[in-house]
Amino acid sequence: MSTIKRNNDNNHPIIKDVYDDIKQSRNTTYIGNFWKYLAFDPHLLKNVWSDVKNLMVKETIIPNKTKEMIYMAVSITNNCSYCTHSHTTAAKKLGMSEEEHSEFLNIVALAAKTNQLVNSIQVPVDEIFDEDIEK
Amino acid sequence: MSTIKRNNDNNHPIIKDVYDDIKQSRNTTYIGNFWKYLAFDPHLLKNVWSDVKNLMVKETIIPNKTKEMIYMAVSITNNCSYCTHSHTTAAKKLGMSEEEHSEFLNIVALAAKTNQLVNSIQVPVDEIFDEDIEK
Amino acid sequence: MSTIKRNNDNNHPIIKDVYDDIKQSRNTTYIGNFWKYLAFDPHLLKNVWSDVKNLMVKETIIPNKTKEMIYMAVSITNNCSYCTHSHTTAAKKLGMSEEEHSEFLNIVALAAKTNQLVNSIQVPVDEIFDEDIEK
Amino acid sequence: MSTIKRNNDNNHPIIKDVYDDIKQSRNTTYIGNFWKYLAFDPHLLKNVWSDVKNLMVKETIIPNKTKEMIYMAVSITNNCSYCTHSHTTAAKKLGMSEEEHSEFLNIVALAAKTNQLVNSIQVPVDEIFDEDIEK
Amino acid sequence: MSTIKRNNDNNHPIIKDVYDDIKQSRNTTYIGNFWKYLAFDPHLLKNVWSDVKNLMVKETIIPNKTKEMIYMAVSITNNCSYCTHSHTTAAKKLGMSEEEHSEFLNIVALAAKTNQLVNSIQVPVDEIFDEDIEK
Amino acid sequence: MSTIKRNNDNNHPIIKDVYDDIKQSRNTTYIGNFWKYLAFDPHLLKNVWSDVKNLMVKETIIPNKTKEMIYMAVSITNNCSYCTHSHTTAAKKLGMSEEEHSEFLNIVALAAKTNQLVNSIQVPVDEIFDEDIEK
Repeated sequence: MSTIKRNNDNNHPIIKDVYDDIKQSRNTTYIGNFWKYLAFDPHLLKNVWSDVKNLMVKETIIPNKTKEMIYMAVSITNNCSYCTHSHTTAAKKLGMSEEEHSEFLNIVALAAKTNQLVNSIQVPVDEIFDEDIEK
Repeated sequence: MSTIKRNNDNNHPIIKDVYDDIKQSRNTTYIGNFWKYLAFDPHLLKNVWSDVKNLMVKETIIPNKTKEMIYMAVSITNNCSYCTHSHTTAAKKLGMSEEEHSEFLNIVALAAKTNQLVNSIQVPVDEIFDEDIEK
Repeated sequence: MSTIKRNNDNNHPIIKDVYDDIKQSRNTTYIGNFWKYLAFDPHLLKNVWSDVKNLMVKETIIPNKTKEMIYMAVSITNNCSYCTHSHTTAAKKLGMSEEEHSEFLNIVALAAKTNQLVNSIQVPVDEIFDEDIEK
Repeated sequence: MSTIKRNNDNNHPIIKDVYDDIKQSRNTTYIGNFWKYLAFDPHLLKNVWSDVKNLMVKETIIPNKTKEMIYMAVSITNNCSYCTHSHTTAAKKLGMSEEEHSEFLNIVALAAKTNQLVNSIQVPVDEIFDEDIEK
Repeated sequence: MSTIKRNNDNNHPIIKDVYDDIKQSRNTTYIGNFWKYLAFDPHLLKNVWSDVKNLMVKETIIPNKTKEMIYMAVSITNNCSYCTHSHTTAAKKLGMSEEEHSEFLNIVALAAKTNQLVNSIQVPVDEIFDEDIEK
Repeated sequence: MSTIKRNNDNNHPIIKDVYDDIKQSRNTTYIGNFWKYLAFDPHLLKNVWSDVKNLMVKETIIPNKTKEMIYMAVSITNNCSYCTHSHTTAAKKLGMSEEEHSEFLNIVALAAKTNQLVNSIQVPVDEIFDEDIEK
């Protein structure tokens, strides 16, 4: 159930190019629902895929498994069910072990708890944290 | 400005023990505002510090710098100003470079963008992501 | 699946009046689940419908299609699935085209991205934005 | 610093009536910033005050102190700084003790933690919780 | 559908102990999905249950029904579907009447509305709310 | 106070180009803090400005004033203080009147209220809203 109709026109030139690139870059034949629905707006599809490819699929400074775990943390905190599922799957494919997953769960749970405490108490920010002043 | 009075009674036995442990474990003489205000409830202070120490200060499977970056991602997404400041500072102390910080900013920004798109479209979750079924 | 039982007592005088008014004001025979469950508390039902009718159904300064798109933006950002669905449907009925929907998706996605960047960086607010000072 | 100019026209008939009613109902001479800024739109001011008065100031089924603690919980979770401050102050005036405040902090912190765990794991809802089915 | 496999190994000593304690403390034979999935990490399961038991199941200063209503308020605001269902069920078991549930709905709805207004207007916090200054 | 140092190197070629383009496109000499801090990562600065320029500054299908009001709605709901200030200012420059601003406040407040009610009740989505089925 969605707010737009899934685009099944795989012959649209932009859509076809993106899907081919996803399949090749990720060495898969599977195109997830996110991309199929995003094809509603081919230019948005192309731009989002370009960002995901350059940032998340290519090797950069931060290891790919770590990048997916950061992505998971944002998605979980935003309570985006689809995103939590897809990026947990991605992190596992990149080698996130059960032990690392458990540790990750403990970290995001503790962060949510201390965030809530800080908001409850309205703790003033220490000046020592300011990057704009000379230290 | 806060909703509770900062506890300056550093002689309370539980508070003193926690502060001493923070100073020793982190090799610092500085106690941040979070701990000073949390001392309003000494048992809560003790429990939160115990969790932070065991999970974030001790060496575990996930490298400490990575753990702080996951913590940052949650804090930013929850828009907890204090937490964003303190955990960014912590990640930098653990070696997060400017390049890694830039890459991190790009990841959390992209995650927020795709989370929002998924929520806008209400993309149905692919069954392939389900961990409860046999694959 | 819900936390309260759907109220099917269409003969309760307040509920009947509200349902009749919804049908007449919107020229429909369909009562959505939101109203059926809200009937759990007839006075709340009446008050919420009164607000929705005066603000969203009646012609006011902001065009009705635009009002629904603002409502969509809040609902998406709050990740309220029901609300995202119902207000997207409403905006379409009021003439939101596929091109406008695409543009809307791009805007809310960009807003989520820049919001996240601002929160990551903790950008200080420019004094020029303050409405309380003389300019 | 705000997005609208504070309305200092205390002679506007609607604004004057609301301010008089706030002072009388709450037995105070102090009008908080929320009301002063909301006076930007006198009808909105009147409606919001009417809701707050009937629900939060008048005696109803749920005790007033408890109502303020529920209001605090929403405001903290939405990270509304002003609201967290004003409703914590209100709860204290209604008798929330330091012990109750501590217990409250523990509850909202635990709730944030388990909410985050549920979202991380995407725990399926037990059918037993459904109010729509016969039990 | 979840991101981890449900743990059905009820013979793991920690898991068995926790499940036995849940059944005895709550006088039930039913173990909810939250606990079954949390068993993925037995130590986390044990710690979370210990917190829930001491804070929510045991009699403390704040009445148990009120505690569940505070928990509901956080869960609803975080839009945690599972948590909203399970804590609404818990509050009802502890005696939350339909009238109290209605009143609760009105409070959390009003809080969300005024939180949003404060954020829209960016209302400055009154100095009178500060607990750090002498009054 | 921020988590990164403000970049004051206006001679960096990418930064200079972006700042010149902002000044020309918006017919101003003022560069807001968002751009000054984003210059920490010149490529991110360039990409974000390019998106903002093409989507928000250029004339597109949705009128620019309306686009800023949609942006405001997301920023308010995400409780991004900087973003709420800057986009409210932008909407006013594009002609948002006090009457439209009042109406906008009423809409986002009502949306927050009904979102919260839907989440409290966990209202099931009507099948009629599904765009994937034939209607």
